[in-house]
Amino acid sequence: MTAQFVITRRIQFSETDLAGIVHFSNFYIYMEQAEHEFFRSHGLSIMQQQPDGSYIGWPRVSATCSFTAPIYFEDLLEVRMNVSRIGVKSLTMEFEFWRDETKIAHGRLKTACCHFVHGEQMKSIAIPAEYLEKIVEADSAPAESS
Amino acid sequence: MTAQFVITRRIQFSETDLAGIVHFSNFYIYMEQAEHEFFRSHGLSIMQQQPDGSYIGWPRVSATCSFTAPIYFEDLLEVRMNVSRIGVKSLTMEFEFWRDETKIAHGRLKTACCHFVHGEQMKSIAIPAEYLEKIVEADSAPAESS
Amino acid sequence: MTAQFVITRRIQFSETDLAGIVHFSNFYIYMEQAEHEFFRSHGLSIMQQQPDGSYIGWPRVSATCSFTAPIYFEDLLEVRMNVSRIGVKSLTMEFEFWRDETKIAHGRLKTACCHFVHGEQMKSIAIPAEYLEKIVEADSAPAESS
Amino acid sequence: MTAQFVITRRIQFSETDLAGIVHFSNFYIYMEQAEHEFFRSHGLSIMQQQPDGSYIGWPRVSATCSFTAPIYFEDLLEVRMNVSRIGVKSLTMEFEFWRDETKIAHGRLKTACCHFVHGEQMKSIAIPAEYLEKIVEADSAPAESS
Repeated sequence: MTAQFVITRRIQFSETDLAGIVHFSNFYIYMEQAEHEFFRSHGLSIMQQQPDGSYIGWPRVSATCSFTAPIYFEDLLEVRMNVSRIGVKSLTMEFEFWRDETKIAHGRLKTACCHFVHGEQMKSIAIPAEYLEKIVEADSAPAESS
Repeated sequence: MTAQFVITRRIQFSETDLAGIVHFSNFYIYMEQAEHEFFRSHGLSIMQQQPDGSYIGWPRVSATCSFTAPIYFEDLLEVRMNVSRIGVKSLTMEFEFWRDETKIAHGRLKTACCHFVHGEQMKSIAIPAEYLEKIVEADSAPAESS
Repeated sequence: MTAQFVITRRIQFSETDLAGIVHFSNFYIYMEQAEHEFFRSHGLSIMQQQPDGSYIGWPRVSATCSFTAPIYFEDLLEVRMNVSRIGVKSLTMEFEFWRDETKIAHGRLKTACCHFVHGEQMKSIAIPAEYLEKIVEADSAPAESS
Repeated sequence: MTAQFVITRRIQFSETDLAGIVHFSNFYIYMEQAEHEFFRSHGLSIMQQQPDGSYIGWPRVSATCSFTAPIYFEDLLEVRMNVSRIGVKSLTMEFEFWRDETKIAHGRLKTACCHFVHGEQMKSIAIPAEYLEKIVEADSAPAESS
């Protein structure tokens, strides 16, 4: 797929398991790292403190990943990301994982925009304009060929 | 749901994040821990060494989880599991996560039965009789009310 | 060593690495789990909210571990713990890790008693009486032979 | 300290805990990442397969870390590393962790050079010439001011 945003990371030893490959739980962390880096690239944080000390954050609604090929210690993993849908209160992002020409996995992350005070209940809110000005769906975004 | 197998685990400090709740990536590890404990309860291992030194293992085809309520440090989390489908070469398992009467999340794990020699390519195989004698679909299993 | 407190845990698949053994970083988490379970056994929490919403917690001053034998997937690991020193503002705990008769590792954790409001600087304080009534040095504790 | 080798990494969300800071167990992983990157910078791998399929690896003898200041989500952490001692069969590395002008922690990692066949006992060996030609003690190394 063409991707709005791409990060590359080297597979770390601590991410492998005794089968000699990356443990699948790490792919959810890789998705999150791409998402956070994408937010930062727009001057945003996934956990944005407000003037009154409260936060706007993005807890996960669901996360899924399908695995097509293993990836190994010291491999370079490319994580390609698109915002596939911007709802009133939620974002859906699609991810593809590649090592050179080999597709390793693909995943999807759905998050809800929430307002909360630390230690209290999170409340789902409409995505504020500040985010909508910067984050756009992949179709409307300038494509980066990959 | 009624469950074929249930484990209970206490949420550890290292599983929380700065939002004060369990980081979502841990739910995939909790599913795996229930799956492995379920295998062990039948005298099986998820990574079974064969007489010739090769292994039968169960790499993940896909893993998905949806989150409905947060869970916190020191909470007791109940993981309920069912084998929802036994294919020729794959298993599908469903999971529900509960804290007392509160449903925290539900997930699904699909795994493929594979034969491999360490450091070489995994090869998908038909699930051996040894497993089929012990692992049955939830519908045919004696239900445990929950 | 005789131990004031012991936990046993089964080694999880996700804790192993491609060398086929438990990744050493997990031993620091095992020490913490024993420490927290020990606190809970005395009706204490490692992160105790105060009536005014602030917390008393125990950030780490230092943590060290030496490794003498590897431990493997599905092994049962016994973590034996002693409080070796109670200072005015700090605790030092010693740990031994065993699989049956094989000593796997030993470690030490030094923590400081701190008072803090979430998001603000932690302040080191004298250990409150509530803790000193319950937590005692190993020498003064009723020994559990091991 | 002057450092033979430096890596910089951004603190990830999944590395934080509910106290709002990086969980201390991550510092051992950061040390390992610097160590592995250092090996790679010399064309070496921490897990080097030999022509006969066996491996030379570097299991940990001990690892220690002392913590002087907390570090937070999205901070840039500099990890400075020196090889402080090359023994006949072991390496000792020292680490300092900095965020700008603030020292966060310092640590030490001692590793043993071992030869092993996957699934069999590791055997401690004298460090081969291939490593000694490339890895030198900090005192003899061209210093990088920091």
